Amino acid sequence: MTETRIDIRYPDCDSMGIVHHAVYPIWYEMARMDLFHKSGCGYDITHALGLDPAMVHLELDYAAPVSFPGHVTVKTWVTQCEGKKLGFSYEVWSDGADLPCAKANSFHIWVKDGKSCDLERAYPDVFAGYRRMME
Amino acid sequence: MTETRIDIRYPDCDSMGIVHHAVYPIWYEMARMDLFHKSGCGYDITHALGLDPAMVHLELDYAAPVSFPGHVTVKTWVTQCEGKKLGFSYEVWSDGADLPCAKANSFHIWVKDGKSCDLERAYPDVFAGYRRMME
Amino acid sequence: MTETRIDIRYPDCDSMGIVHHAVYPIWYEMARMDLFHKSGCGYDITHALGLDPAMVHLELDYAAPVSFPGHVTVKTWVTQCEGKKLGFSYEVWSDGADLPCAKANSFHIWVKDGKSCDLERAYPDVFAGYRRMME
Amino acid sequence: MTETRIDIRYPDCDSMGIVHHAVYPIWYEMARMDLFHKSGCGYDITHALGLDPAMVHLELDYAAPVSFPGHVTVKTWVTQCEGKKLGFSYEVWSDGADLPCAKANSFHIWVKDGKSCDLERAYPDVFAGYRRMME
Repeated sequence: MTETRIDIRYPDCDSMGIVHHAVYPIWYEMARMDLFHKSGCGYDITHALGLDPAMVHLELDYAAPVSFPGHVTVKTWVTQCEGKKLGFSYEVWSDGADLPCAKANSFHIWVKDGKSCDLERAYPDVFAGYRRMME
Repeated sequence: MTETRIDIRYPDCDSMGIVHHAVYPIWYEMARMDLFHKSGCGYDITHALGLDPAMVHLELDYAAPVSFPGHVTVKTWVTQCEGKKLGFSYEVWSDGADLPCAKANSFHIWVKDGKSCDLERAYPDVFAGYRRMME
Repeated sequence: MTETRIDIRYPDCDSMGIVHHAVYPIWYEMARMDLFHKSGCGYDITHALGLDPAMVHLELDYAAPVSFPGHVTVKTWVTQCEGKKLGFSYEVWSDGADLPCAKANSFHIWVKDGKSCDLERAYPDVFAGYRRMME
Repeated sequence: MTETRIDIRYPDCDSMGIVHHAVYPIWYEMARMDLFHKSGCGYDITHALGLDPAMVHLELDYAAPVSFPGHVTVKTWVTQCEGKKLGFSYEVWSDGADLPCAKANSFHIWVKDGKSCDLERAYPDVFAGYRRMME
């Protein structure tokens, strides 16, 4: 599990003064890239190899709103790591809260040159790095 | 069903030259508000009443990328319209495509003054307007 | 002069319920690209040639706020069109207003492969198209 | 002078793989709010008083592009602090660079309840706090 601290930006909030629901996918992506980076297989490495974990499915739950100024902590878990597929689970926490204020699950397929790619076969070292994140 | 045409904006695209996945929730919101407007119960009316259809759950499927310049058509259906709850289904279509390039479902609860609100009881006329959208 | 109609998006507004000042550069870019397109030398053409009118200077004046729902009309003029440089002037108008609610000027240099490019020498036909926009 | 470190977000980059020019006003706002906060008169205080430093003029210079992943440091100076007006100067720096990659100036007027407000008269303590930032 990885924890990523994210500062809320003023324009992340909408007319109701709360963070707009379309901002959360950006936070989850930041958390996911932080997890990639901490696992030793960051965006730099996959990007140089022409590899992209393309988003295919995203489920978002919104429980309690958050506002500017402030920050949140996103907790991220790897839930699936197969040759062609990758899955993550996320929770957004405000300081001192008893429950997460939002949750999500995302599912990705590895794409290279516009085609699905089996990471385990094509790049076993990179795959092993991601696999270790599940432990 | 409502059809909403949306022009793709240049900064909607990311480094891969495709519309970033966090832009789609904005498109679905535009389509939802267009449906509200066309049904005669637009944002103006609910906002004046202090009513907000708060997003509680959003599921997004991404099938094929889209790019700038261009436009998409979002088709929107009301899938649920009860006193306290509202649900929508969406499809994103590119011109001439055989299949939608993305799909989504969203679920909302009516909120007024920070509390859940039964629209059917509190505002039967507004509720009747939304209810008609299901037919 | 080109006129471009732009629909205000709900998340374009900040906590004060007015369009955030960082959204205006996106509107000016949409208007600029619309002008390019209408002049016959749209993004498709310059992008295919590897040409980019890189933003080097942008001046923005904010006179009166605008809100969702609604739309604005951006009026755009070419103010400078030399071999290596391009300049534009913009006004944002609300319906029925006596004065523009915002104004801007932008200055660009033609860049190809990361280097400054003299459009008049390298692509005289494209240059002639832009030059005609000044008339 | 205040220094504010900002992490570049993946969707801040456009199709050219560089941070889009409309993102810089958001960075300058983050830096400005950080300066307010460090001076002891943060957004919380002015917001509670109904005060807003409304943006009236913004000048932006772009010298060299920046990309994801990475971060920048924004250096911010107060250049004007009168009863009704406030001005700032900004520089964006990449690590190890000899020159800033971008610069800006912003000008604001104090607004309360939709009208111009003389901060020095109405809130001398808050004004004194901002005034000290110039020293």
